[in-house]
Amino acid sequence: MLIRSESEARIARLQGELSAQGIDAALILHPIDIFYFSGTRQTSALLVPAAGAPVLWVRKSLSRAQEESAVTVLPFPSSRDFAQQLPEGIRTIGFTFDVLPVQQYNFYAKLLPGKEFVDISAINRDLRSVKSPYELELMRASGRRTCAVFAEVPQFLKPGMREVDLAAEFEYRLRRAGSEGLTRMRAFNQEIFMGLTVSGSRAEAPGFFDGAVTGRGLSAAAPHGASLAPIDRDVPIILDFTGIWDGYVVDVTRIFVLGKLSERLTHAYQTSLAIQQYLAEHLKPGVICEELFQAAAAMAEDAGLGRNFMGAPGENARFVGHGVGLELDEYPVLAQGFKVPLKAGQTIAIEPKFVIPGEGVLGIENTFAVTEQGGENLTQSSDEIVYL
Amino acid sequence: MLIRSESEARIARLQGELSAQGIDAALILHPIDIFYFSGTRQTSALLVPAAGAPVLWVRKSLSRAQEESAVTVLPFPSSRDFAQQLPEGIRTIGFTFDVLPVQQYNFYAKLLPGKEFVDISAINRDLRSVKSPYELELMRASGRRTCAVFAEVPQFLKPGMREVDLAAEFEYRLRRAGSEGLTRMRAFNQEIFMGLTVSGSRAEAPGFFDGAVTGRGLSAAAPHGASLAPIDRDVPIILDFTGIWDGYVVDVTRIFVLGKLSERLTHAYQTSLAIQQYLAEHLKPGVICEELFQAAAAMAEDAGLGRNFMGAPGENARFVGHGVGLELDEYPVLAQGFKVPLKAGQTIAIEPKFVIPGEGVLGIENTFAVTEQGGENLTQSSDEIVYL
Repeated sequence: MLIRSESEARIARLQGELSAQGIDAALILHPIDIFYFSGTRQTSALLVPAAGAPVLWVRKSLSRAQEESAVTVLPFPSSRDFAQQLPEGIRTIGFTFDVLPVQQYNFYAKLLPGKEFVDISAINRDLRSVKSPYELELMRASGRRTCAVFAEVPQFLKPGMREVDLAAEFEYRLRRAGSEGLTRMRAFNQEIFMGLTVSGSRAEAPGFFDGAVTGRGLSAAAPHGASLAPIDRDVPIILDFTGIWDGYVVDVTRIFVLGKLSERLTHAYQTSLAIQQYLAEHLKPGVICEELFQAAAAMAEDAGLGRNFMGAPGENARFVGHGVGLELDEYPVLAQGFKVPLKAGQTIAIEPKFVIPGEGVLGIENTFAVTEQGGENLTQSSDEIVYL
Repeated sequence: MLIRSESEARIARLQGELSAQGIDAALILHPIDIFYFSGTRQTSALLVPAAGAPVLWVRKSLSRAQEESAVTVLPFPSSRDFAQQLPEGIRTIGFTFDVLPVQQYNFYAKLLPGKEFVDISAINRDLRSVKSPYELELMRASGRRTCAVFAEVPQFLKPGMREVDLAAEFEYRLRRAGSEGLTRMRAFNQEIFMGLTVSGSRAEAPGFFDGAVTGRGLSAAAPHGASLAPIDRDVPIILDFTGIWDGYVVDVTRIFVLGKLSERLTHAYQTSLAIQQYLAEHLKPGVICEELFQAAAAMAEDAGLGRNFMGAPGENARFVGHGVGLELDEYPVLAQGFKVPLKAGQTIAIEPKFVIPGEGVLGIENTFAVTEQGGENLTQSSDEIVYL
C-alpha cells in the first residue's frame, strides 16, 4: 500500500497547481494517474478539490480499493446524485484531456451541467515527472532487477536463434524475476510489448514507434520488435527492454554480438557512450532539455554520424532521451523544441543511438535521475558491448 | 499485406453505414481501426468519405505504410492545408469517441472549422464484430496455435511453482510460437498482460478487470493475473490466455490441478461445460445476446450455483461471453441489457466461470464463430480438467 504521506504530498502538489491556475478541482480518471495519487488503480474517479480532502469514488473493485487506497474510498455515486457530491463552490474542473476519451468527457459533462472543464494534462505530467525519494528507491530496485536479467544474456544468446526466440528468453527471465510486463504508454497511438529485440539490418526498419529503433515485428498488426528472422553473426543485436516493479518502469538498452563488428559500428557505439557521458554529467536542475539534445546532435555531427543519429538518414527522430516512471513516455523529453529546465528528481532514459544503413542499429540506454551532481544512473551495469 | 478486396469490402460496409446515417465521412484515428480498414497500423489518419475513394494520411512511417496499406497513402497534410484536402461537400465527420482523446478531438476541431463531429463508435464496433471468411481463417490459425501451447502445459507445470513462474513458462511458449504478446483492449480503464495465471483462493481476489477472474497480480500497480505466491495442491489452476497472430486474438481458458478437486468444484466445472454446450448450440444469427446470458444464469441457478456464477457472491459480473477479434473486448457481449441479435461471422469468447469462496475459481472458455449451425469452436481441444 502506498504510504499515506506520499499520497498526501502528491495531492498537496496538485492542489498547489490547481490553486495557482485558478482551477477549483481535478477529476482524475486515468488509471495510472489515479494510482499515482491514491495508491490504487481500481476503476474509479478521484476528486481532488483545490482545497480540502480528496475522495476516491470506486466502480470496481470497491473492496480492493479500500485495501490499497491512501485516499478515502466511497462507492461511485449514482448519476442522479453525482453533482451533489461535489463540494460547494466548484465551477471549473480539470481533466487530463491527453488521455480522456470524448465519450468519458461527454458522460461527465452530462453529470455536471454548468461546470467548465479544463485541461490539466500538462500539470499532471509535470507533477509526475519529479520523483520523490520513495519513488526513486522503487526505480533503483527496478533498475537493479532489470540489469540482473541483462547480465544473464550470455547464458542464453546462441547462434541460430530467431529474434523472437531471444525476445522470449529475455521476457521469460524478466517475468520470473517479477517484472509486471505491461508497459504503459501515454501518447495516443503508441504501444509496446515489453521491449524490442532486433538485430542487424532488420533493426533499421522504420515504424510508428516514436524512437530511434522499431524493428520488423511479427506482422503489420504488431509492426515493432522481434521478427521471426534468424539473428546473423557480426551484426549488432539490440535488447531494448523495460523492467517494471511496483509500476515503476526503467528503460535499458545493451548491445550483444555473435562475432565482431565493423570499425564504423564500433566508432558509432563509442560515440553513443561519449554522448551518454556528456548528457549524464549535465543532468542537473536548470539545464534546458533542448540544449542537451542539441549538444548530443552536435557530438554526433562531429563524429561524422549526424545523418545516422536517432534514426535512418532522413527519418531521424529529434530527441535523445525521455522521461520514464509509471509510464514509458513521461516528461521531460530531451528534444528539439523542449525549452524547459530540468528539475531535481526527474528520471530520464538517455538513449543516443545510431542507424548505419545496411549494417544495423546500435547505441546505449540507461535510466538516470536528475540531481545537483548530475545524472544518477539507476540502471548501472557494464555499458560495454558483449561479444559472444 | 491485407488483400485489397478485404480492405475494399470493409470500407464499402463503413460507407454504407455512413450513408444510411447521413454522415458525410469518417476520420479513423485509432491504430487498430486503421489497421482493420487499411492493413497498416502506422501513425496516420484514414479519411473515408461516404462515397468515393478513401485516403490514408501518414505521419510515421510513410514508407512502412506504403508497403502495408491497401488504401492510397499520402504524407500527412500540413495543418494549414488540412481542411482543403477534404472532398467537397463534407459537413459531418464521424470519429470513434469511445477511444479518441479530447486533445485529439480539439486538434481536429481546430483544423476543420465549421464541420460537425459525430460519434461513430457503435458503427465501427458493429462492423468489426462480423468477421469475413478471411478473418475467420486467421482466427482459426490463432486458435490452433494457442491450443498447441495449452497442450504442452503438462510438460512444465510442476509442484512448487509460483503463479508467476507458470505464467512465465506459458508466455515463453506463446511467444516462441510467434504470438504477438500485446493484447489490445478498447474499454477505457481496462488492460491485461497476455492472460491470467491464477490458482486456488487467490483467484477469487476481486479487481478492476471486467471479467469473472482477476487475480492478485504482482502489485497494486499491476493488480491482476499471476502473483508471487506458490501454487497449492488440490486447487484449480486457471490458465486464461490470449493468443495473437496477425493481430487476431483468441481467448481460451483451461483448468489444471496438481492432485484432485472437491466434489463441489467438480460439479461447478461440469456445469460450466453444460452451459458452454448450450450456448454453443445457440450461437446462431438472430438469437438475442441477453437471452443467452439469462439462459446461462438460469442453468447456474438450477445447478445450485447462481450466487457463484461469474464472480464472488455479491460481485457477480452480468455477462457470460464477449466478442473478440483485433481487440479482446469486442462486440457483441452476451450480457444483461444487450438486447441485440447475433450475426453470422461474429466471434465470441464463451466463458462460464464459477467462484467458490475459499476453494477457488474455475470454468471453461473457448472462442466461437456464430454460424447458421451454431457456434464453430475456433479453439478446439480437450475441454477436460487436466489432473497432474
